[in-house]
Amino acid sequence: MVLYGGIEMGGTTCVCVVGTGPDEVRGQSRFTTTTPRGTLARAVAFFLPYQGELVALGIGAFGPLDPRLDSPTFGCITSTPKPGWAQTDVVGPLRRALDLPVAFDTDVNAAAFGEYLWGVAQGSDTFLYVTVGTGIGGGAMVNGRVLHGVLHPEMGHIRIPHDWQADPFPGTCPYHGDCLEGLAAGPALVARWGQAGETLPAAHPAWELEAHYLALGLVTYICTLAPQRIIMGGGVMQQTRLFPLVQLEVQRLLNNYVQVPALGAEIDDYIVPPALGPRAGVLGALALALQMAL
Amino acid sequence: MVLYGGIEMGGTTCVCVVGTGPDEVRGQSRFTTTTPRGTLARAVAFFLPYQGELVALGIGAFGPLDPRLDSPTFGCITSTPKPGWAQTDVVGPLRRALDLPVAFDTDVNAAAFGEYLWGVAQGSDTFLYVTVGTGIGGGAMVNGRVLHGVLHPEMGHIRIPHDWQADPFPGTCPYHGDCLEGLAAGPALVARWGQAGETLPAAHPAWELEAHYLALGLVTYICTLAPQRIIMGGGVMQQTRLFPLVQLEVQRLLNNYVQVPALGAEIDDYIVPPALGPRAGVLGALALALQMAL
Repeated sequence: MVLYGGIEMGGTTCVCVVGTGPDEVRGQSRFTTTTPRGTLARAVAFFLPYQGELVALGIGAFGPLDPRLDSPTFGCITSTPKPGWAQTDVVGPLRRALDLPVAFDTDVNAAAFGEYLWGVAQGSDTFLYVTVGTGIGGGAMVNGRVLHGVLHPEMGHIRIPHDWQADPFPGTCPYHGDCLEGLAAGPALVARWGQAGETLPAAHPAWELEAHYLALGLVTYICTLAPQRIIMGGGVMQQTRLFPLVQLEVQRLLNNYVQVPALGAEIDDYIVPPALGPRAGVLGALALALQMAL
Repeated sequence: MVLYGGIEMGGTTCVCVVGTGPDEVRGQSRFTTTTPRGTLARAVAFFLPYQGELVALGIGAFGPLDPRLDSPTFGCITSTPKPGWAQTDVVGPLRRALDLPVAFDTDVNAAAFGEYLWGVAQGSDTFLYVTVGTGIGGGAMVNGRVLHGVLHPEMGHIRIPHDWQADPFPGTCPYHGDCLEGLAAGPALVARWGQAGETLPAAHPAWELEAHYLALGLVTYICTLAPQRIIMGGGVMQQTRLFPLVQLEVQRLLNNYVQVPALGAEIDDYIVPPALGPRAGVLGALALALQMAL
């Protein structure tokens, strides 16, 4: 049987799967991301028993990283602050140990591609996957291809209007202070309100403010990328009460400037959670492997 | 001889050319944009003598418009406030009168494509063309194809931080007030300072503020699209003193978060004027015709 491998390499946890798709997962392993050597060794140990059947491996990793096939540092995590991981070749050791072609991209690009192949982005060719968790990141496909440019996009770091009177919180981003990620990622919720999103009650003013900032971000992405759909995943978005708040706020901010049904009556089908749920990342990595082997 | 036609259909002026490229323009005509019927008739009258040699026509038009080939309203200007032009079929009458295939896109997408074929975007596959004039608009190519999504991008309408104490001007956008276009397009300069950009002296504080707003916009586009290059055209950018100010402000705002040479030592080769200068629009329309015929 022909099998594919996928690795979701997060800053905290690694998940590996072997299979052919969401309904055909033959094996899975989850372990803590430690040193590069230790982490890659555990991944190799998981995949080795499938050698012979495995035809390609896909990796969706935390960044910054270099996904450009023609670059001398392709396959590396680059300037990450994560101790021990800066300038680390991830693809090379796995390719050598398993003797397989390896696809490599950011975790959000992988998740976007997984939703394109098997999830809510089927039938879209230009769409966006946004994750709101420890950080805020975005992966886009444009005309059916993953968007890479001079770097991978850093969508969490856009600047948005910040009303200091309504919200004197200065933001948590060490580079930009009150960029979108600095105002609205999980750590900003904790720092501003003194508790994590999971414990904030539904009626807490935190949610309206959070929806406002996220909507400001989405409006920017809509004006810039014109996605046919926006998928929102990540830990913070598991508070699903955010979806209707964000949808309404996007409409209020756009103020009918953009007259398409997706942003009007169909907005609840436009800003949506990932169909693959918390498996979007690792199944996306698997999808990268499939695409490479095709 | 095989010839192509290009029309830059602006809200105020139309420009038509016949030729094969920037160095081979066989004829040109410029006239005021009046009614749809009158304007299209003048365009037809210009192209008719070339019938037999002309193989395709390209149009870069003011918007909003519908460039989606599979849409029932393809080729139409849609919800424009310009009197007489809302829901106007532009492509149909020209195709019938000249019996030619007609390519149709926004003026900025056409300009982007022209720079891709003949200008400073040669060799880039993911880049951005931004115009700063009566409005602010952007056209992007991603992986060598023009970006279209659920609508054409509306890059001028992103929200940016606005320090009301430093700049109490409320913005000119009828939809969003102080979006980027509302704060930094030509009419905002005139309304804020009481005179047009052309007459403001080099030492006027207007330029630093203008560069700040434009840089906030560019930083957003950089984080979202990761373009390999940004081309800035339009009337306001003819004040070329803006280029170094914008370049520096982009670097200050990014604060070394993105470590690529293009945004560091090579920034003056990253944010650049169009190589085709004021002809970028009409030559871009010609480029659309070429591409369609290939």
